[in-house]
Amino acid sequence: MNTRLAQRMEGFSPFFVMELLQRAKELERQGRNIIHMEIGEPDFSTPLRVVNAGMQQISDGSVKYTAAAGLPELRKKIAEFYKKTYGLDVPSQRIFITPGASGAFLLALGVTLNAGEEIIMADPCYPCNNNFVQFFGGRTKFVNVNEKTRYQLSADLIEKNWSKNTRGVLIASPSNPTGTLMSNLELKKIIQQVSKLGGHFFSDEIYHGLVYGKKASCALEYSDDVFVINSFSKYFSMTGWRIGWLIVPEQFIDPVERLAQNIFISTATHSQYAALAALSDENIIELESRKKEFKKRRDFLYKHLLRIGFDISVKPDGAFYIYANCSRFTKDSFQFAKDLLEQEGVAVTPGKDFGFYKANCHIRFAYTASIAKIEAAIKRLERFLCQ
Amino acid sequence: MNTRLAQRMEGFSPFFVMELLQRAKELERQGRNIIHMEIGEPDFSTPLRVVNAGMQQISDGSVKYTAAAGLPELRKKIAEFYKKTYGLDVPSQRIFITPGASGAFLLALGVTLNAGEEIIMADPCYPCNNNFVQFFGGRTKFVNVNEKTRYQLSADLIEKNWSKNTRGVLIASPSNPTGTLMSNLELKKIIQQVSKLGGHFFSDEIYHGLVYGKKASCALEYSDDVFVINSFSKYFSMTGWRIGWLIVPEQFIDPVERLAQNIFISTATHSQYAALAALSDENIIELESRKKEFKKRRDFLYKHLLRIGFDISVKPDGAFYIYANCSRFTKDSFQFAKDLLEQEGVAVTPGKDFGFYKANCHIRFAYTASIAKIEAAIKRLERFLCQ
Repeated sequence: MNTRLAQRMEGFSPFFVMELLQRAKELERQGRNIIHMEIGEPDFSTPLRVVNAGMQQISDGSVKYTAAAGLPELRKKIAEFYKKTYGLDVPSQRIFITPGASGAFLLALGVTLNAGEEIIMADPCYPCNNNFVQFFGGRTKFVNVNEKTRYQLSADLIEKNWSKNTRGVLIASPSNPTGTLMSNLELKKIIQQVSKLGGHFFSDEIYHGLVYGKKASCALEYSDDVFVINSFSKYFSMTGWRIGWLIVPEQFIDPVERLAQNIFISTATHSQYAALAALSDENIIELESRKKEFKKRRDFLYKHLLRIGFDISVKPDGAFYIYANCSRFTKDSFQFAKDLLEQEGVAVTPGKDFGFYKANCHIRFAYTASIAKIEAAIKRLERFLCQ
Repeated sequence: MNTRLAQRMEGFSPFFVMELLQRAKELERQGRNIIHMEIGEPDFSTPLRVVNAGMQQISDGSVKYTAAAGLPELRKKIAEFYKKTYGLDVPSQRIFITPGASGAFLLALGVTLNAGEEIIMADPCYPCNNNFVQFFGGRTKFVNVNEKTRYQLSADLIEKNWSKNTRGVLIASPSNPTGTLMSNLELKKIIQQVSKLGGHFFSDEIYHGLVYGKKASCALEYSDDVFVINSFSKYFSMTGWRIGWLIVPEQFIDPVERLAQNIFISTATHSQYAALAALSDENIIELESRKKEFKKRRDFLYKHLLRIGFDISVKPDGAFYIYANCSRFTKDSFQFAKDLLEQEGVAVTPGKDFGFYKANCHIRFAYTASIAKIEAAIKRLERFLCQ
């Protein structure tokens, strides 16, 4: 029996929330009512016009490979979306359709990152982003961030943490787990800083559609020499379709295309046709009304978490997460999450899934559940904390 | 402008056929009739019962992530398929649903191959397989194969080419581009040899459904300590759905799951439901009748290619390719393919897309076109050769 594992797997951090998820399912099988606030997936269904476009395309069975970079009409439609949303002219040749944002990360890091090189990321951050770096034999240089920089990196922090092995910087704004947005000024400064240092800049913009009462800037507003990762999963409620996109600097079009041809062949065809409909004006109107609902949930959850004693030092601007400090109640947020699930049937994600810095003092709440459910969860939390 | 590319991209071989494909499209836009024999994609549509199952699942918009390893019922159904097809008991926990065979390769090599290590493959072989190895910073040890071993590796060849850096062996049987099957005895010997040498064995079985008048053995018949890659694309006519599967040795279940969670999240949900229907008994009956059609095409194309002067030293057993020696007509099969396209509108794939060994003497014909089209192509070829 051959048990030799590739070295890259050593650095792969596990998802602690999986243990909670499995236990939640067990409890549900036993008949317990569980309120899910651990999942980074919109509770909304895919809008029916999007579904119908996907169904229309497959109805005659002609579901063939597309070009590796994606359907030309979808790439063009995304280019139009950038014009409307950010006033940007992005040549559609720079836009690659990918199997989720996951596919976009594989391409972006695949063409740039060598084994042994470092990518700078904020701690806390989304765990897969570090694992993508591990996948290529790279190392993540985690930089602790806190309320002073709205849980985001800054140009200063990047300069201080740059080494001869640093290959680039990855930011996610709004951030998962904190939901906080980087200021436009800081984004601009960071992009200039990274350029000066000769690195690559990767901008994870998958929560851009879900920013409440502010406007997120696209990294492309400040430079064409950046990689932008985006997805139809979150704002567009299309998780299970597995479709996202990557915008690359012009000089990377050829290698990214070569890589996509080899490691994906293409992205699921019907998902691409569905995505075309997802970008239609009527659909955006529906999504904007969903966004209002997410904003209500954020405001509701934020208010009540503060009221019952959680500390949230920066009000989140977007995504559908609140990263709450629970140090008033526990020094072990993973145990706290386990107990909360067992006793009250509320599932949340422990901070240690998002890094190391003050991870044991934090819990991530996802407001991917209705206000009624969030209200019930708050009642359960209150009862749990009073024990 | 930052132009630094990751080193892994240096070893990425391009697809020469892309140049021909682009030119073929140009000619079609000009009104020329092109017969496509370059494409490794069945001309058959996805059967309607499979389409309907996919549509049924998405119709209410509830298209959510599945477990990273795939729908439990699909994994179970694939396990049943192995029982029926090979008489094998494969625990469904060892079966992972992936975005095409491409995804299966990413997982299998991702958990086993370190940068700098070698994988042994036959030359000629499918070009992506080498590029997957490059993707992980590995090296492909190409071993020239010819009619003596039916264009497949042998236990002897593997022993001779093994070095201290060798991590494993990848075979594809039936082979792309040659369509030839490895004998069951040799497969068994190779698996034993690789095990003795302490390597991993990867069996690309994506053309297993398309073997004519023989029965292909699954690598799992000889050992549980192998990786088996398969796909719904070819036999099941589901290319654009992007769905395949990987079977792993038990000791790799955990790392493969961890990797899949991080680099894919999951495979497209509706494709998984469609695949469930694809494995139904009624569907297999339809696919078996398509297989008969492929066999007719092989026999027809084989006979006529020989008649007009191509040399095919081993009659292909499966897949939908014939790898024909054209050295009687040219010393540069790429130029030959270009001229054939320009003059007669027949598109084929040059040997240099499949390796180095006698590549300039070979052309790959795909019989993913009707007999009528193949007949027309043969007439055009005859005219082309008489000039």
